[in-house]
Amino acid sequence: MANTDSVGLRVFSLNCWGIRYLSKHCPQRYAMIGDLLCKEQHDIVLLQEVWSEKDFLSLKQKLASTHPHSHYFKSGVIGSGLAIYTKYRIHDTFLYRYSLNGYPYMAHHGDWFGGKAVGLAILNIGSLTANIYVTHLHAEYCRDKDSYLPHRVVQAWELQQFIRHTSAGADLVILGGDLNMHPQDLGNRLLRTSTGLRDSYSETAKFDGCENGMTLIADNPFISQKELSPFKKGIRIDYILFKGSSKADIYCDFMSTTKGSVPDHPFPYSDHEALTAELRLETRTRTEAENDRKAISQDAAAEKLAELVDIVTEARTEVKVGLHCAERMRYTATRTGVMGLALLFLELAIAAVPWLALGAEQPFPRTSFYMLAALCVAILVTTFLLYIFYTMELKSLQGAEDQMRLAVGSLQERLRGFPLAQPHSSQRRPPEGLEPTAFDPEE
Amino acid sequence: MANTDSVGLRVFSLNCWGIRYLSKHCPQRYAMIGDLLCKEQHDIVLLQEVWSEKDFLSLKQKLASTHPHSHYFKSGVIGSGLAIYTKYRIHDTFLYRYSLNGYPYMAHHGDWFGGKAVGLAILNIGSLTANIYVTHLHAEYCRDKDSYLPHRVVQAWELQQFIRHTSAGADLVILGGDLNMHPQDLGNRLLRTSTGLRDSYSETAKFDGCENGMTLIADNPFISQKELSPFKKGIRIDYILFKGSSKADIYCDFMSTTKGSVPDHPFPYSDHEALTAELRLETRTRTEAENDRKAISQDAAAEKLAELVDIVTEARTEVKVGLHCAERMRYTATRTGVMGLALLFLELAIAAVPWLALGAEQPFPRTSFYMLAALCVAILVTTFLLYIFYTMELKSLQGAEDQMRLAVGSLQERLRGFPLAQPHSSQRRPPEGLEPTAFDPEE
Repeated sequence: MANTDSVGLRVFSLNCWGIRYLSKHCPQRYAMIGDLLCKEQHDIVLLQEVWSEKDFLSLKQKLASTHPHSHYFKSGVIGSGLAIYTKYRIHDTFLYRYSLNGYPYMAHHGDWFGGKAVGLAILNIGSLTANIYVTHLHAEYCRDKDSYLPHRVVQAWELQQFIRHTSAGADLVILGGDLNMHPQDLGNRLLRTSTGLRDSYSETAKFDGCENGMTLIADNPFISQKELSPFKKGIRIDYILFKGSSKADIYCDFMSTTKGSVPDHPFPYSDHEALTAELRLETRTRTEAENDRKAISQDAAAEKLAELVDIVTEARTEVKVGLHCAERMRYTATRTGVMGLALLFLELAIAAVPWLALGAEQPFPRTSFYMLAALCVAILVTTFLLYIFYTMELKSLQGAEDQMRLAVGSLQERLRGFPLAQPHSSQRRPPEGLEPTAFDPEE
Repeated sequence: MANTDSVGLRVFSLNCWGIRYLSKHCPQRYAMIGDLLCKEQHDIVLLQEVWSEKDFLSLKQKLASTHPHSHYFKSGVIGSGLAIYTKYRIHDTFLYRYSLNGYPYMAHHGDWFGGKAVGLAILNIGSLTANIYVTHLHAEYCRDKDSYLPHRVVQAWELQQFIRHTSAGADLVILGGDLNMHPQDLGNRLLRTSTGLRDSYSETAKFDGCENGMTLIADNPFISQKELSPFKKGIRIDYILFKGSSKADIYCDFMSTTKGSVPDHPFPYSDHEALTAELRLETRTRTEAENDRKAISQDAAAEKLAELVDIVTEARTEVKVGLHCAERMRYTATRTGVMGLALLFLELAIAAVPWLALGAEQPFPRTSFYMLAALCVAILVTTFLLYIFYTMELKSLQGAEDQMRLAVGSLQERLRGFPLAQPHSSQRRPPEGLEPTAFDPEE
């Protein structure tokens, strides 16, 4: 009622599919994207898969007058592919690289080389501090046998951690990007429930775009039916999420997506559809904020917590599956390495026989000898590199699992409203307490 | 005056030098450390270089009654080596892996394999939320020709970013660890100035320990004189830093270090000295906090900002030096790779000659041929891996340089108090404005 200020904010997000020389019609599509952005003049533009810095820079030049401020997040071998263009000055940026991101030897999937990350840019919008996040999670290549699921769950876990821990000072949080997860996928639920971020598609007052808000659709000529299987029409994996704070409310008045084709152009902007959310910020007075905070019932808070406990537990199970898998892979690499070493010793032993028994009749098979030795060395080097890689994967999975266990314990304790085993009772928890729990997260 | 509450907090930090089978007297020293911690019962114990999880777990068991809560931060191939034990329940943890950390082929320095990182644990101390950070930066092996300086500066940059961005909701921040930097080193100044963290050694009311607070001393039998050169007596590279907030003041009443030997024991706890800081927290009333905030003069704030601009500019220069170096290294790797490839082709051409001119008189030198081919392949594989590694290093350095440039621009603008080029003026900046600056951070 007593809102003092209302600001409109148009946010755009697109996975550009910008692999130079490999993505179809890449330069033409970048030109189309640039034209669109110039014309539409969104307040905040979040792009993913801008793999070449040259493309980032040429877009920057094109948008110099409409979006004077920009940042390109660099990481990994190729880069993170993440870029932001905005009308607001960027005060600060920060990048968090996910600890897991596929396998380097799955070069045809290419995710590992991309150095997937989440980028943060801090803007001031009026008197409000806005934390704008842009990210791109590991792709799902096969839904039935998704060997990357634990990696994506750990990425979702780290993403929510990063957002939660860095947004305490923000009045407004926006996350845009290609999450590569369906709306009800584990990682997505984990992200939304733990951060409190709301999905602009679910929240919007009005929507214009593909059926069910899909962002990867069969009608897009760059998409093959096989990729989408078993979802014939398409899937929703790109999102604009947002949340306000005690200082500002945020609403989504309108949301739209592109629909697989662009008028007057022979092909669409990308293989993904572009998202636009028209948000409205309303700054709140101090009294309003305080009243609202008290208004949230303890029952609702407890329900939220219980849901989060379930989701984190589910995520933990998934990470454990990944752990077993990584352990098995490391074991296989070790065994293969040992066999390579045994073969090498065997070969040396065989070579030593004619050398010891001088004047043997058979000529020594040099060619085979060297070929076999080279094979052994190749096996040893490869298995050593794999061993190191799997060890790092294991550490990351174990680390995430530890953190999840701790989080579940902490959440359960909050849920039970039981006073903490520490010198002073905390004011953060609901006061009513049930019986103490036997659950110890550090067990 | 009107302080409502005062809590004492004893913080301990030690680099344990815990490389199993390699560090001298490792099990005995862990036993000594465990005894010390049981006896002293510090509130928060921050350990570095606990390389083996087994050692972490056995310490955990030993400290179960005195420090019931603990966390071991996992990352990299070996681990981060970071551990925390505390009397307070740990509610949440988060780990940030530095993007740069030495070179994998410098195996004898080993830093790369350690997966250096900064760990965050969130505790509730009374009604206060405390963010506790523990870290270990890349070692300095040679002060005169420190090829790791850019890596350490980028680590310090990322450390201050991580602390700044994650501590907005904290009432109290404590950082303990082995920074591998002298008090006035660039990275240390950058860290302190940008975060506002204060050094417990400089701030303490009373001190008992090594001269000048040194933590790596010549009197320690594990330290060779060569390592310390040119600092004969020792250096100060381990720290406990802290800061309060508008909700709590924090003071250091007493600080101590070990002095290179332990009574009744033949050797010290580690090659580093252990630090103990006795901090005192005083919660503040709301009015106090507001008065104090107003009391900070704009001149003092401007001076701080100007100092920070200088330091970030200096850091940027250092990162640029690292960039040039990485570019040169990548160029060398590329050139070597091309030479390896040329050699391989040459060899194949030579091999083709006797094969074409059948019945040549000279026998074909098979041994040399295979040896040379193996050498070529080894060169190609190595240079390819190096190329990928240097590309990642370059991206990280470029990323840090970009962020520093942006930060300098933002700081300079704040410094000049000039209103921003955005729809609403911000309330965060001092109102008095000078002439607009021509400096554009995004140029």
